Amino acid sequence: MNPTLIAPPALVRRAEQHDTKAIQALDSAHYLHPFTSHGDLAGVGARVITRADNIYVWDSEGAKILDAMSGLWCVNAGYGRKELADAAYQQMMTLPFYNSFFNTTNVPAVQLAAKLASLAPVVGGRKFEHVFFSSSGSESNDTNVRMVRRYWDLLGQPQRKVIISRHNAYHGSTMAGASLGGMSGMHAQGDLPIPNITHIEQPHHWDNALPGESHADFGRRAAGWLEEKILEVGPEKVAAFIAEPVQGAGGVIIPPETYWPEIQRIVDQYGILLISDEVICAFGRLGHWFAYQKFGYRPDLITFAKGVTSGYIPLGGVMVGDRVAKVLIEQGGEFNHGYTYSGHPVACAVALANLELMEREDLPGRVKNDIGPYLAERFAELSDHPLVGAAETCGFVAGLVLVKDKGTREMFDPALSVGMICRGHCFRSGLIMRAVGDRMIIAPPLVMTREQIDEMMGLIVKCLDATLDDLRNAGELA
Amino acid sequence: MNPTLIAPPALVRRAEQHDTKAIQALDSAHYLHPFTSHGDLAGVGARVITRADNIYVWDSEGAKILDAMSGLWCVNAGYGRKELADAAYQQMMTLPFYNSFFNTTNVPAVQLAAKLASLAPVVGGRKFEHVFFSSSGSESNDTNVRMVRRYWDLLGQPQRKVIISRHNAYHGSTMAGASLGGMSGMHAQGDLPIPNITHIEQPHHWDNALPGESHADFGRRAAGWLEEKILEVGPEKVAAFIAEPVQGAGGVIIPPETYWPEIQRIVDQYGILLISDEVICAFGRLGHWFAYQKFGYRPDLITFAKGVTSGYIPLGGVMVGDRVAKVLIEQGGEFNHGYTYSGHPVACAVALANLELMEREDLPGRVKNDIGPYLAERFAELSDHPLVGAAETCGFVAGLVLVKDKGTREMFDPALSVGMICRGHCFRSGLIMRAVGDRMIIAPPLVMTREQIDEMMGLIVKCLDATLDDLRNAGELA
Ligand SMILES: Cc1ncc(COP(=O)(O)O)c(C=O)c1O
Ligand SMILES: Cc1ncc(COP(=O)(O)O)c(C=O)c1O
Repeated sequence: MNPTLIAPPALVRRAEQHDTKAIQALDSAHYLHPFTSHGDLAGVGARVITRADNIYVWDSEGAKILDAMSGLWCVNAGYGRKELADAAYQQMMTLPFYNSFFNTTNVPAVQLAAKLASLAPVVGGRKFEHVFFSSSGSESNDTNVRMVRRYWDLLGQPQRKVIISRHNAYHGSTMAGASLGGMSGMHAQGDLPIPNITHIEQPHHWDNALPGESHADFGRRAAGWLEEKILEVGPEKVAAFIAEPVQGAGGVIIPPETYWPEIQRIVDQYGILLISDEVICAFGRLGHWFAYQKFGYRPDLITFAKGVTSGYIPLGGVMVGDRVAKVLIEQGGEFNHGYTYSGHPVACAVALANLELMEREDLPGRVKNDIGPYLAERFAELSDHPLVGAAETCGFVAGLVLVKDKGTREMFDPALSVGMICRGHCFRSGLIMRAVGDRMIIAPPLVMTREQIDEMMGLIVKCLDATLDDLRNAGELA
Repeated sequence: MNPTLIAPPALVRRAEQHDTKAIQALDSAHYLHPFTSHGDLAGVGARVITRADNIYVWDSEGAKILDAMSGLWCVNAGYGRKELADAAYQQMMTLPFYNSFFNTTNVPAVQLAAKLASLAPVVGGRKFEHVFFSSSGSESNDTNVRMVRRYWDLLGQPQRKVIISRHNAYHGSTMAGASLGGMSGMHAQGDLPIPNITHIEQPHHWDNALPGESHADFGRRAAGWLEEKILEVGPEKVAAFIAEPVQGAGGVIIPPETYWPEIQRIVDQYGILLISDEVICAFGRLGHWFAYQKFGYRPDLITFAKGVTSGYIPLGGVMVGDRVAKVLIEQGGEFNHGYTYSGHPVACAVALANLELMEREDLPGRVKNDIGPYLAERFAELSDHPLVGAAETCGFVAGLVLVKDKGTREMFDPALSVGMICRGHCFRSGLIMRAVGDRMIIAPPLVMTREQIDEMMGLIVKCLDATLDDLRNAGELA
């Protein structure tokens, strides 16, 4: 097959006509956005993003914006990658869908599973040879909950049901995902968490360390909360611990170096499963294919989504380590779980093309050896800014905290929404940066060049300055 | 933009090389399939589906198979629809992803929401003007649980948490989806159902009617189980009732005509929300855009997925009726719920192209007035077959039950797995038909012609005959 694509006029028109007011009106009449207050949105009107290339997106008014959030932590390979569109087209014309129930399979799903297994290095004798597919991070974490409990059932320990997670973690928005997550605002809506999920405090030095406590000491102490919780619940009842290598949606919380080794010691001591939720951190984000490599721990299950397709098409899944896979396969019988789109051929074909592209351009290596260190260097300079209490990076994510007083680490009154003020300046200045409370965070596409990092840093400083001016004008700062 | 697609050689090779044994070996080494016993699968080797066109799929050995299950109840528009591949390509080159969090939006998501709203007719004064997007049926039902509870919270009735569903229902495979579903095998794995979900018996005349009870009487009695359950739980604690218009995965259970009107009376009387899970039944499957039109009831929320994209790309969602939308928008503040891929621009662009195609070819109308009635006529003839206890259709789904004795309605010993014997004959004869216990079910693509219906019926009869021969040879039948 060698298809020539001739775009039907209606489609081309759809991408090129931009009557902003009309789109906003339709938007507010019909589209319920995720995590949005629709009363408020209707008042301001949504910004309409219409096209994208490389690290930039454009809105319906023609404004060009540097997307320092990679869409939503996912467009790792950048926008406009023709290989991915080709792969989707090709696969849709060949086999747009087939299910993997009832002993059937399809080639892209098999190839992607094999590819992912080849990318996950063996650690401490643990291999990741099996993959379960879904279409999102949330669905993958539901798979984890069901799989972990199935594992312990098969081992004759059905009382091991409790999964320990962390406050301010993000693991998705299904009932189980939101329960695993530690977002109090989500728990408040919908009778959450579901039973047998419990949370410990996060390893967030800025918020949780004792006065004068070193990062190293704090990291060990924070890991110790896991052991305390295990003992509180009863070790024989604990099934697993789930955590993000670096907390993303919680505000880019980078754990101290001492944290993960101590966590590993604890899960090993009590024999509980370790789930590494790498929806954000895998596929080059931290300078490796998988994030456990960065911190050197040994998970049993790895949640992935986002970067696996660079967000071009929904796909997620779980890398199943041999410890769990062996039990499921050899003792399991039917695992009564799966999604219509588990192993979707088009999604898998796009993921394959994306991983091949990332490999060819060595995006993980670029982050590790080139743009990651350069981002760290440039970010460190921000510490001199009067508003910045701390500025940290890890691979190609970064966060900074806006403070009223650098010396005393005094924060602004939350009612001022200083993060939102700063985000507003970013939006207007052509930069997408996210605010989590008064933390400003970024996770740019991994194709970003050093020149583009400079461009981004210029915009960040400009927006910090504008925020500072606002606060001074409002009398909130000297 | 007027792109010319030149397929990279690697991709073309991927689609054309088929070393079945090699793919099967990789498959069993790496790919954990949904709802599968992997020990068993490794023994037989998965069938590799490699390409598809119209209503046919081909396996890696070159065998052509009539896909009477539309992939998995989803390829409503049939395989090989270039418009859908074009739409995906076009949108990937324009804007492959952008999020709808943080007051941003994208054109395909807005247009799709508006289009869906325009397709859902007003019933009893109830309008469906708003849409929440996800990537699957499961995620959409998680959205329903969270949205329903949020609705009652906002109305000051937080104690209304209980959702009533039905045994043998299928609502997905997340923790909440599997809990809403009434599949005992799923409940047995993973500590399910989650709290505040309860089930009533299904309206399945064959299994549940009293001897001699008419369909009409049984339908009213079966609906009455909802009222009994509401009274048992306490009407002030019930939030919603969820049901499939016609149960799909449960075995194509078509309710008697008297069922839905009585359900409507009951939900109205107690003021509880009605969720119509139309993941299978919407988008032409029952001869209408939405299935509530077929039965004339008035849901508050409609779950959709599958047919909205004809399965070419993952997309799902919830049509939110005005009763709920008004409260959420006007009183709601932020609804703390959503998925990274809610409103994915490529998924929405493909859905739009799919709905336009279905409209142009009037697929719902074809089912209602042409191929649906013809399928019913041809299926009725099966009642004469010695193995067939009942053969029923509704729109373009159909089911038949294999019985040992037509007169006494005696079933076969489940240990014989007669459904699986029949399914085996289908597979080998070039027909995909699904077995649910001893019910054989189909849901063919809506583009099927009358000639293709004849071809399918010929294969069905051939496989029923072969099953009959097997049973006679095994001494199970006279
Ligand atoms: C660490 C982590 N896990 C899970 C999820 C949920 O993924 P999704 O939105 O695809 O369901 C996210 C989303 O941001 C995430 O960051
Ligand atoms: C009625 C119904 N609801 C929900 C689902 C779950 O959809 P998904 O597999 O996309 O999660 C299905 C899947 O078959 C279904 O038939």
